[in-house]
Amino acid sequence: MKIGILGAGQLAQLLAHSAYMLGMETLCFSETQDAPAARNSPLCIGSLHDQALLDQFAEQCDVVTLENENIDVQVMQALQCKVAVYPQLKAIEKAQDRWLEKQLFQELSIPTPGFFSVDSLEDLQRAVQKLGLPAVLKTRRLGYDGKGQAMLREPEDLVLAWQALGGVPLILEQYIPFEAEVSMIAARSVSGAVAFYPLHKNTHVAGILRMTESPYLNPSLQNQAEIQIQHIFSALDYVGVLVIEYFIYNNTLIANEMAPRVHNSGHGTIEGYQMSQFEMHLRAIVDLPLLTPQLQHPTWMYNFIGTMPHLEPDDYRDSHVYVYGKSPRPGRKLGHMTSFEHKSALYQLLQSGSP
Amino acid sequence: MKIGILGAGQLAQLLAHSAYMLGMETLCFSETQDAPAARNSPLCIGSLHDQALLDQFAEQCDVVTLENENIDVQVMQALQCKVAVYPQLKAIEKAQDRWLEKQLFQELSIPTPGFFSVDSLEDLQRAVQKLGLPAVLKTRRLGYDGKGQAMLREPEDLVLAWQALGGVPLILEQYIPFEAEVSMIAARSVSGAVAFYPLHKNTHVAGILRMTESPYLNPSLQNQAEIQIQHIFSALDYVGVLVIEYFIYNNTLIANEMAPRVHNSGHGTIEGYQMSQFEMHLRAIVDLPLLTPQLQHPTWMYNFIGTMPHLEPDDYRDSHVYVYGKSPRPGRKLGHMTSFEHKSALYQLLQSGSP
Repeated sequence: MKIGILGAGQLAQLLAHSAYMLGMETLCFSETQDAPAARNSPLCIGSLHDQALLDQFAEQCDVVTLENENIDVQVMQALQCKVAVYPQLKAIEKAQDRWLEKQLFQELSIPTPGFFSVDSLEDLQRAVQKLGLPAVLKTRRLGYDGKGQAMLREPEDLVLAWQALGGVPLILEQYIPFEAEVSMIAARSVSGAVAFYPLHKNTHVAGILRMTESPYLNPSLQNQAEIQIQHIFSALDYVGVLVIEYFIYNNTLIANEMAPRVHNSGHGTIEGYQMSQFEMHLRAIVDLPLLTPQLQHPTWMYNFIGTMPHLEPDDYRDSHVYVYGKSPRPGRKLGHMTSFEHKSALYQLLQSGSP
Repeated sequence: MKIGILGAGQLAQLLAHSAYMLGMETLCFSETQDAPAARNSPLCIGSLHDQALLDQFAEQCDVVTLENENIDVQVMQALQCKVAVYPQLKAIEKAQDRWLEKQLFQELSIPTPGFFSVDSLEDLQRAVQKLGLPAVLKTRRLGYDGKGQAMLREPEDLVLAWQALGGVPLILEQYIPFEAEVSMIAARSVSGAVAFYPLHKNTHVAGILRMTESPYLNPSLQNQAEIQIQHIFSALDYVGVLVIEYFIYNNTLIANEMAPRVHNSGHGTIEGYQMSQFEMHLRAIVDLPLLTPQLQHPTWMYNFIGTMPHLEPDDYRDSHVYVYGKSPRPGRKLGHMTSFEHKSALYQLLQSGSP
């Protein structure tokens, strides 16, 4: 069984690591030789727009998946003529575009911040009149880790934000003064089996995930999240791991965005549960049995952003450390650490040098 | 931190898999390009007797370990001038030679079957007079998986066994009509911390390990085994994972042999404990904290010998499957499966086609 993965970053690397324990092989499609997944998977190196190479890749794989939803729709279309691709195109299309994504949430009665599409400064002004300030202007496509976003607090921010982001389709979103951010990680297999992890609590700094604690135990919110993600599973006939990132406001979940793939906030599932999100995703797409995630230990997951910290032996006492093998760069995710206890001093240190 | 591993088989592959979760790199010394560990580790390809290559290898590594104790002593001596090598030469020398190994057991008052060294047919006849029949004639060096052994049941077996095995140093061992076979897996770190797994119960067929159940709970035997392995740790100033394979006879442990490395019977520690033998070994040799193994689930580990079985999706329900990537050959270990329940039908199937 060979799993094709579009992309060769740390998520592909972690998928390949899990594939090993299911007796599977992987082949990662990468633009460069020097990619994290090169460490534990063969690569297919080149451009996704090289049709001959893409065909060759598809022919070698039993099923194809992805580590990043920003795959050209035409590439997905070409691929799915040759091989099963999960998650399917219709999920990828929604997740690529914040406006389609929020429309989907609305259609399924999943609470989401108010939003308007913005294609001109006039659109922006009208939208601000309806949503009020503060509000968040975002590019509809290709944003991640806080990139392609501007917070509007004062009326004079509108023109500046328009100048910074305008020229591509935008969306204005109501600002939610959230009490916490959580993510729902769940999976659905080819034959329709589902599995839900307990909610994970996320802390972002400057738009980048810094820490995730699992589990975040709240039976009522857990129940809300499971029902909501099942609605998405059904609407999209979804296969694979799906993650919804939520704000919690007034003890209600408000869906911010979704990721049709394994997710940074789920890294701690490797140590924290008897089955990780990576294995769950692989099982879902090849239709092996999913298991109900069973908590082994509460976990705290810390991202290493921009630079690698110096770790002492004692930092490893109840911890695992992952180094992706990427060169340091401000804001770049270089690795992470999962611990069975909150390492607050380390966490402070990790934030001190980061952007 | 780069770990050099002498060898690139499945044990090296599993060590590299664990190294990944500690943020470590690995470099496996392999005679061939086509080795299991090539999947998840860079290789250094060539002969261990190529001194320039060995030096180059040593210079790239922070510490060197091994997956097989049958490393030429001169290679070990040359290596340890350049880089720390764990386990140390004195442990390797003992474990390479069944006679030295059993002498060590005797010196440390660890019960072991009666034994005599045999260098001639006359030696063999004298030894049989003292030990009685049945007895087991073994090569002192290089035996594994039942190779290099002959069972002597009748007086006429002596000449046949001598013809089959003679010409190299031999050892005759008393036959123990054991009730069970168990292994003790333990580790000692550079700074002297120790960790013990519960005993594992092993089933061999035709000299090859077929199934391991963990834990084998027997507080009195567990206590015996922990004391005995600590004696070996102290005697050899040992660093790394060490495994003693025991017979159980009359509710007593009788030491059969030891392995100065991670061991096939410990594969289930990946799923069964919060820390696997592979991670424990890596932590021991780089002096990171060891943790007391905590049972997560009882496990049953099945070896795939000679041919790969056809597995149904349901076989994966509570199981992980490891495929080493070796070509099939009678008696060869091609992979294994670890389950949280005893899959007796599968086990029967696995034995049916095996030598």
